[in-house]
Amino acid sequence: MTIDHTHDPAARSCVPGADGHPDFPVQNLPLGVFSVGDGARRPGVAIGDHLLDLAAALAAGLLTGEAARAVAAAEGGDLTGLLALGAGPRRALRAQLFALLSADSPDRDRVPPLLHEAASGTLHLPARIGDYTDFFVGIHHATNTGRQFRPDQPLLPNYKHVPVGYHGRASSIRPSGVPVRRPHGQAKPPHRDEPVFGPSRRLDYELELGVWIGPGNDLGAPVPIGDAADRIAGFCLLNDWSARDIQGWEYQPLGPFLAKSFATTISPWIVTPEALAPFRIPQAKRPAGDPDPLPYLLDPADQAGGALDLDLEILLSTRASREAGLGPHRVARSNARHMYWTVAQMVAHHTSGGCNLRPGDLLGTGTLSGPDLDSCGSLLETSQGGKVPIRLESGEERRFLEDGDEVTLVARGRREGFATIGFGACRAMVLPAS
Amino acid sequence: MTIDHTHDPAARSCVPGADGHPDFPVQNLPLGVFSVGDGARRPGVAIGDHLLDLAAALAAGLLTGEAARAVAAAEGGDLTGLLALGAGPRRALRAQLFALLSADSPDRDRVPPLLHEAASGTLHLPARIGDYTDFFVGIHHATNTGRQFRPDQPLLPNYKHVPVGYHGRASSIRPSGVPVRRPHGQAKPPHRDEPVFGPSRRLDYELELGVWIGPGNDLGAPVPIGDAADRIAGFCLLNDWSARDIQGWEYQPLGPFLAKSFATTISPWIVTPEALAPFRIPQAKRPAGDPDPLPYLLDPADQAGGALDLDLEILLSTRASREAGLGPHRVARSNARHMYWTVAQMVAHHTSGGCNLRPGDLLGTGTLSGPDLDSCGSLLETSQGGKVPIRLESGEERRFLEDGDEVTLVARGRREGFATIGFGACRAMVLPAS
Repeated sequence: MTIDHTHDPAARSCVPGADGHPDFPVQNLPLGVFSVGDGARRPGVAIGDHLLDLAAALAAGLLTGEAARAVAAAEGGDLTGLLALGAGPRRALRAQLFALLSADSPDRDRVPPLLHEAASGTLHLPARIGDYTDFFVGIHHATNTGRQFRPDQPLLPNYKHVPVGYHGRASSIRPSGVPVRRPHGQAKPPHRDEPVFGPSRRLDYELELGVWIGPGNDLGAPVPIGDAADRIAGFCLLNDWSARDIQGWEYQPLGPFLAKSFATTISPWIVTPEALAPFRIPQAKRPAGDPDPLPYLLDPADQAGGALDLDLEILLSTRASREAGLGPHRVARSNARHMYWTVAQMVAHHTSGGCNLRPGDLLGTGTLSGPDLDSCGSLLETSQGGKVPIRLESGEERRFLEDGDEVTLVARGRREGFATIGFGACRAMVLPAS
Repeated sequence: MTIDHTHDPAARSCVPGADGHPDFPVQNLPLGVFSVGDGARRPGVAIGDHLLDLAAALAAGLLTGEAARAVAAAEGGDLTGLLALGAGPRRALRAQLFALLSADSPDRDRVPPLLHEAASGTLHLPARIGDYTDFFVGIHHATNTGRQFRPDQPLLPNYKHVPVGYHGRASSIRPSGVPVRRPHGQAKPPHRDEPVFGPSRRLDYELELGVWIGPGNDLGAPVPIGDAADRIAGFCLLNDWSARDIQGWEYQPLGPFLAKSFATTISPWIVTPEALAPFRIPQAKRPAGDPDPLPYLLDPADQAGGALDLDLEILLSTRASREAGLGPHRVARSNARHMYWTVAQMVAHHTSGGCNLRPGDLLGTGTLSGPDLDSCGSLLETSQGGKVPIRLESGEERRFLEDGDEVTLVARGRREGFATIGFGACRAMVLPAS
């Protein structure tokens, strides 16, 4: 993950409002798919409060070589083909866009016709998600939730050996902004002998990062840990909405199913590994007594710089708080460094038995809680299983989510000497059960 | 599920060899995708030992109206669009093909140019599988495997209330004939304190039916149980290959993952609900003391005829047995009636929280074991957890699968007064770990 001139914090953009933008300065340049008035989906890049139409930039002759090939692969407003090309074309595109959008770009007069105001556009899922896999690498989350089921053994014996994951539901992944309907489902309340069917009463969010797969691997051909980082095309935020009452009743012995499959929300921009290069950190040293990862999960470069230092936040806005004119309440602050396994380890493990990943596949990290109550990535943890409500600035209490609640996840890379890089919002409102 | 003239056992076909064919008489007419010499994928129908090219039949003007619309939707050799159209066009296609292929068809002279010998063609996955979900509705399998982990409580408390299922891996589903590479993975042998990584030593098959989804449902719009059968476009056989040593170590708390995701084999023909109408039977009466299904899973028509009477077989051929000129050894015989939940109940449950199914999604039933040792759908059960080997006709023993073993699943509907209907083979050979 090389630091180069595209990370220069002094770089200025010709797009008004981009410099110092909290998410999308010229040092970020995340990839996405948007539509404006006519509804046609176009590949785009976020720059400040604008969307740059990549297809229009290509048509205007402003992209050449590998960068042009990358955008041509995204025809039809689907980045899957671009992701499949891997790091070379993606980096070429970054470099040419950085030059095009710089304050001293010789083509700066040709940029305004390519721009749309972000507020005028709709963002879509950026790629066809073939398979979605959710991991469980947030060790504080695994410990906190495990404690509720197994006070004496919160972490199962496999946790520190296996990057535990499971298959999720791809069809119900939606981009930020699409509301989430409270699901019906079976649950067995503790005071009853038989299960009941009805709207979930323990609806929750989960703060995760999403990982976009670029070049895939053939069935039967595992990706060695040393190559795994090259298969990752970018990152997003991911809210793994969870119905805890449904989950508690259904999950044995085959894992979570309908408790999760009713909705997953992601931030629609693909933030590239290049944009996040300044925020790479060494994988956290394992506490004394923890086992070493098995060799297929060990790579010196990954140990040295495979983890991510990203500030994460969860914001909650309720109907009452909006009516009172209050801003969203910050429920938690956490950081992506609370991952026991790196994303490269997730990829290497996923493919270690021969399972094939395809371009556009999505991996979730699992909930990225920190060690404290105010850094928990789910209400299940914050409210200690629903026992201790949190108090909001509006005076309301929450054990779990109520109808009208709007949850926003935020991620930003901040580092002295570098521009701040953001992911854009991952936001959705809870609608009442139908 | 109406019985009509297309189920007449006396019907004869103009295609030589189709009458009395063990799988594909004119009363079956399963849908698939094949290629011949030029490699182009074409929609097709199996008739006897031949493949009928549906695109060629359409081009020849032999299909009209809804039937023509169905085949047009399968352009490009992908039946997803045809499945999405639902029962009307699918039934119209069946009726016109039945007439076209009848012995007294006025167009019988125009049929031969549409045919290819099955042995000359390659069968492909018939549709784009968006999501694959595997259920667990074989109650004998659930009991047998549960007993190995929990002798005192083989069935968990939710089993008779919830059609338990979980998300599977879509990317690694392959049609019959594609070999399966023995996976590497983490396992913790009982005599060791730490896990090891290496080729699975407990590779197994699982005998399942697959269920193809036709018209889907929108996110947030559950399919009522009374409508659920209409969402099913057909059936196949499914071998849910399983690495038991990997599974035992990884599966808690989120369920099976790499133990299954290295390969799933399906029979490539979509056997329609119409073809299987004669083999519908009432859902088995629940034993006294079992709870009634919750109302969202109860429908009188489903109770009366939502189950399936299909003979199932597992055949095993080893390298030694082939070298000795022996035929495959029948390891087990079972029946699809051993499902505790119907496929309509699976669909209604799956969507009950709002999860959307898409055309081409695939559901597995879970392993369909019978009550006896010689009707077990997995070696884990037959060998009682690997403790009691089975003896093959070749003189060999098997606790789990060895390299070179070839597993074939077979399904046939047999009923007095009706033609026998088969699924075609679901077959794959185990290759050594790479």
